[in-house]
Amino acid sequence: MFELLKRLLVGTPLRTDRLGEQLLSKRIALPVFASDPLSSVAYATQEILLVLTLGGLAYLYLAPWIGLAVIVLLAVVVLSYRQVVRAYPSGGGSYEVATRNLGPSAGLVVAGALLVDYIMTVAVSVAAGVDNIISAFPDLNPWRVPINLGFIALLTAMNLRGVRESGRIFAVPTYLFVLGVLVLVVTGFVRIAFGDTPLAESAAWSVAPEPGHANLTGLALLFLALRAFSSGCTALTGAEAISNGVPAFKAPKGENAARTMLAMGALSITMFGGITALALIAKVHYVENTCDLVGYPGDCATSAQRTVIAQLAAAIFGGTSSPMFFYIQAVTALILILAANTAFNGFPLLGSILAEHRYLPRQLHTRGDRLAFSNGILLLALVAGALIYAYKGSVTSLIQLYILGVFTSFTLSQTGMVRHWNRLLRTERDPGRRRHMHRSRLINAFGAVFTGLVLVIVTITKFTHGAYLVVIAIPVLFAMMRAIRRHYDRVATELAPEPGGMVLPSRIHAVVLVSRLHRPTIRALAYARATRPDTLTALTVAITPEEVRQLQTEWDEHDIRVPLTIVDSPYRDITGSALAFIDSLRKEHPRDLIIVYIPEYVVGRWWEHVLHNQSALRLKARLLYQRGVMVTSVPWQLESSRSEPEIRTPAQVGR
Amino acid sequence: MFELLKRLLVGTPLRTDRLGEQLLSKRIALPVFASDPLSSVAYATQEILLVLTLGGLAYLYLAPWIGLAVIVLLAVVVLSYRQVVRAYPSGGGSYEVATRNLGPSAGLVVAGALLVDYIMTVAVSVAAGVDNIISAFPDLNPWRVPINLGFIALLTAMNLRGVRESGRIFAVPTYLFVLGVLVLVVTGFVRIAFGDTPLAESAAWSVAPEPGHANLTGLALLFLALRAFSSGCTALTGAEAISNGVPAFKAPKGENAARTMLAMGALSITMFGGITALALIAKVHYVENTCDLVGYPGDCATSAQRTVIAQLAAAIFGGTSSPMFFYIQAVTALILILAANTAFNGFPLLGSILAEHRYLPRQLHTRGDRLAFSNGILLLALVAGALIYAYKGSVTSLIQLYILGVFTSFTLSQTGMVRHWNRLLRTERDPGRRRHMHRSRLINAFGAVFTGLVLVIVTITKFTHGAYLVVIAIPVLFAMMRAIRRHYDRVATELAPEPGGMVLPSRIHAVVLVSRLHRPTIRALAYARATRPDTLTALTVAITPEEVRQLQTEWDEHDIRVPLTIVDSPYRDITGSALAFIDSLRKEHPRDLIIVYIPEYVVGRWWEHVLHNQSALRLKARLLYQRGVMVTSVPWQLESSRSEPEIRTPAQVGR
Repeated sequence: MFELLKRLLVGTPLRTDRLGEQLLSKRIALPVFASDPLSSVAYATQEILLVLTLGGLAYLYLAPWIGLAVIVLLAVVVLSYRQVVRAYPSGGGSYEVATRNLGPSAGLVVAGALLVDYIMTVAVSVAAGVDNIISAFPDLNPWRVPINLGFIALLTAMNLRGVRESGRIFAVPTYLFVLGVLVLVVTGFVRIAFGDTPLAESAAWSVAPEPGHANLTGLALLFLALRAFSSGCTALTGAEAISNGVPAFKAPKGENAARTMLAMGALSITMFGGITALALIAKVHYVENTCDLVGYPGDCATSAQRTVIAQLAAAIFGGTSSPMFFYIQAVTALILILAANTAFNGFPLLGSILAEHRYLPRQLHTRGDRLAFSNGILLLALVAGALIYAYKGSVTSLIQLYILGVFTSFTLSQTGMVRHWNRLLRTERDPGRRRHMHRSRLINAFGAVFTGLVLVIVTITKFTHGAYLVVIAIPVLFAMMRAIRRHYDRVATELAPEPGGMVLPSRIHAVVLVSRLHRPTIRALAYARATRPDTLTALTVAITPEEVRQLQTEWDEHDIRVPLTIVDSPYRDITGSALAFIDSLRKEHPRDLIIVYIPEYVVGRWWEHVLHNQSALRLKARLLYQRGVMVTSVPWQLESSRSEPEIRTPAQVGR
Repeated sequence: MFELLKRLLVGTPLRTDRLGEQLLSKRIALPVFASDPLSSVAYATQEILLVLTLGGLAYLYLAPWIGLAVIVLLAVVVLSYRQVVRAYPSGGGSYEVATRNLGPSAGLVVAGALLVDYIMTVAVSVAAGVDNIISAFPDLNPWRVPINLGFIALLTAMNLRGVRESGRIFAVPTYLFVLGVLVLVVTGFVRIAFGDTPLAESAAWSVAPEPGHANLTGLALLFLALRAFSSGCTALTGAEAISNGVPAFKAPKGENAARTMLAMGALSITMFGGITALALIAKVHYVENTCDLVGYPGDCATSAQRTVIAQLAAAIFGGTSSPMFFYIQAVTALILILAANTAFNGFPLLGSILAEHRYLPRQLHTRGDRLAFSNGILLLALVAGALIYAYKGSVTSLIQLYILGVFTSFTLSQTGMVRHWNRLLRTERDPGRRRHMHRSRLINAFGAVFTGLVLVIVTITKFTHGAYLVVIAIPVLFAMMRAIRRHYDRVATELAPEPGGMVLPSRIHAVVLVSRLHRPTIRALAYARATRPDTLTALTVAITPEEVRQLQTEWDEHDIRVPLTIVDSPYRDITGSALAFIDSLRKEHPRDLIIVYIPEYVVGRWWEHVLHNQSALRLKARLLYQRGVMVTSVPWQLESSRSEPEIRTPAQVGR
């Protein structure tokens, strides 16, 4: 049943040697790794305007400068990361850069930050997409959380099917979205060039400032501008996903990744710049609280303003009933949900690298049936789903936890790159190469300073809005990964084989646990005797004298040649009494091996487990803690267990 | 930690041979087994009046007759059960009587009915007690369910401490309640005798009939009377508890139980008769819906009427501020909660008998640290707690599921007793004894007919109010117990030792599972070799060629003398590939024994489990289904597992 369902959802298993075939061309890699940064243009402009209009329309003059700052930042980050993918094509991305150049601790901070951010990408993107769907169909509102979880489940299933197929599924909508936005921007500017400037529906509405936000000056004004800038920085999330995904590219991996990075950057800047410029030209007035809109026709308490992109589409393509308006709305909702896929590719890859470095459980390094890192995919889905459940799918709450992680990793990886170039410059003598390195170092240094500054700004402006949770989560993850690494290291030292090879125990004592005399007991005795131990004990724990008398009688009747050893247990504690016996045996013969044979029932139906005494299992679990003791299960398959499915060889499981 | 908490709650373990000391004297047995029937006089009268006043005051003339009918029924049941405890002193009670005389199926029906009713006793009694507490302190209403569950937990803990101590705890309140009610009744009648007839507060209020209940005639009137009678029959619940508890009495068990039964019956009849008579004389008008009370001073929608016993106490002892009023109220609330204790004694005893007869899992027959049937106590607490949780602690809802079970068991056991006397009469020749038997048979026959009639009445009048659930539950329990018995019987046949004794397998093949070359692997190989098998295979499953190459290199380096067998697993399915290998080995040597050695890590901290691959455990679970295969765990105790507590011998566990 479970097997069938799994095959239906995930597909037939793939052979390990088909791993090479799963590599991505640039055309597929772009939507797979860049749907998140591309999709963020759908809301980045809106987030900037939202903060600025807190003080009415007075501060909108800051918007072009903030937009420009975001574009410069985007360009810097893209250029910096092109250096990263070329220098570190193994896919560790920011994590690897920081580890190699700044040491393992910095690397772990980056890893923690990225893990948090991948999770947030899934939560925020899916929640934002569902928000859009619910804006279109308000009746769905009561099912907001289930719809969110449904989409996460869908993304999980698709990613479990394997990276290439999920890439294909996501390629089409991403390109449709890019196409739609580009057509929007071009049409807008053509209309402006012909003097037919489009005007947004909200252009006619004025904005009342929020209490305490009117007539800001000095530091307060700066803080507002910085907050708007922080919000605009959502355009940068996921920019580093390509650098983590380099191994999934076709060869030449580094170069292909750098080119994809460039294409992503160019598209993002064009789309974000175009939308921001058009929004300002078309006088889009977008507010956090609809009731601040002076002249808004609807009931501001219950209805929401159209999104910036929707207002632009309506203004440019001729109203909210034009086919292009619907096209833009549909692909925007779709890409927002698919943006989560970026994280579904990045998180498991990073997790597998961390697991390989023994900072995370090694299960994250195991490839599933379809060669994807299934455990990482499932873990991401679980945590993101839990966050959406906890925050009831509210984008406003979730977005506060976002981008802090990204900028932590940006700053540390760019700093690492500066060190990287410094190190190379120390040995490089070729003047042409040195010039090139100097230029690269300049780009990365600028990137480090710029993103570091943004990190400070983002932390300050978002801290009290929920970002403090991330400030807690990253050190916790850091400590956890350190602890896991310490554990694995300690175990590795403990388990390292000693020189000298095997040391055989001098003698073997077999103890067969007997509760009643039936076929499983007789079989256990036969098997134990077959291994020719030095001593063989049939051990029974006496609860009531009658039981023991009866057992002894049966024992004699069936002429069992092994003498029955009876341990009294006045407190009816079978496990404790048997353990005490074995413990004393062990103390008597400290250099010998004790094998405890436990006859065990194997049942076919779940409820039959309840009907058979679990004391054997309890004893088994406790015996594992005893040194020099080996525990042997002698299974007795009850009739009902015959229904267990036949063992299938891998050939049968395959195609 | 857990051990300490358990000792604190439950006490130190008791030795099995102290079982005899736990027996009950009549004085303790009365409150232990009879707190339920005694407490029911606190609400039985009220339940009768509640139904009759549905049609206004017109039908109160029926009350004396209904009360009389309940008293007669009570007398009949007590007399009938005195025959049962004498004839069947082994404590099977109704179950044993029905099984012996009517066959195992009838016995199982009785058992199912009793199990349901014990559960309902706990749920209803605790809920009713809490209801009384909340009537006194309405602020506690939001915590109704937690308070209910808290009391159940308290009763559970007390009963886990052992039957005698919990009996002592419950003896005092039960006697205080009996004393209080007797003083109430005597004082009432003395006042009447002196012409100072007490008058209840509600005597002045008239009652408006519910729609459709005015001017009833013929069948409708009969139905109302029968419904009132059904409700009054709550006075009989728990009457059979003594018959199930006979083994807990001191010798002579049967005679002592019969005397206790008589005392219980006499007290119940006196108290119930007295309260009902006084309620009618003092003109208590008690209604289901307070708004039907004409002249009620409070807000009928939010406040509730005082209970019948409270009204009587107020009328007889001089108002709601007299000390005796408070005394009666306090002991009533207390006894209602303690009434649940009857079931806490009856259910585990019946469960243990059923487990002994293999109709229930044998764990129910195991005595805990304090010699109580701990599993039965916990099971009862869990199910009753779940019911209270599901019904949100509402007495009105829960009470509908009540008494159906009791009357099923009454009817069947009395019928069984008739058969019992018939059988004895067939062989008995002594005229004196025959006369005695004839009289006994008459009592039981009368009881069977009477309780059977009540069963029909109760089923009809309560079916649509929720009793249908019980009508479903009893057959389900019946079927379940039959299935369990069938399972145990089948297993017993399957496991019966064959003549001929042990057959030793001809050859032994040892397979050691290898993932990497470390000390646990080397130890497993050493242990396996120490048992001198006919063949010894070191098996590894290859996921990637690099891993295998590395393992092979290490193997050669350490000069391991056992050749390494490599199984390819192109689909990365370790369990499946290893199973397939062992399966083929098994098919090759069908008469031989295969021992699979699995090196296993033993960790000390829970989170360390996550960090070590679980594939070995999965393989172990699957191997148990293979015939002729024995699975040996070779534990390797990691440093962290050293913190595991030392094994304590039973002597240390004791006092």
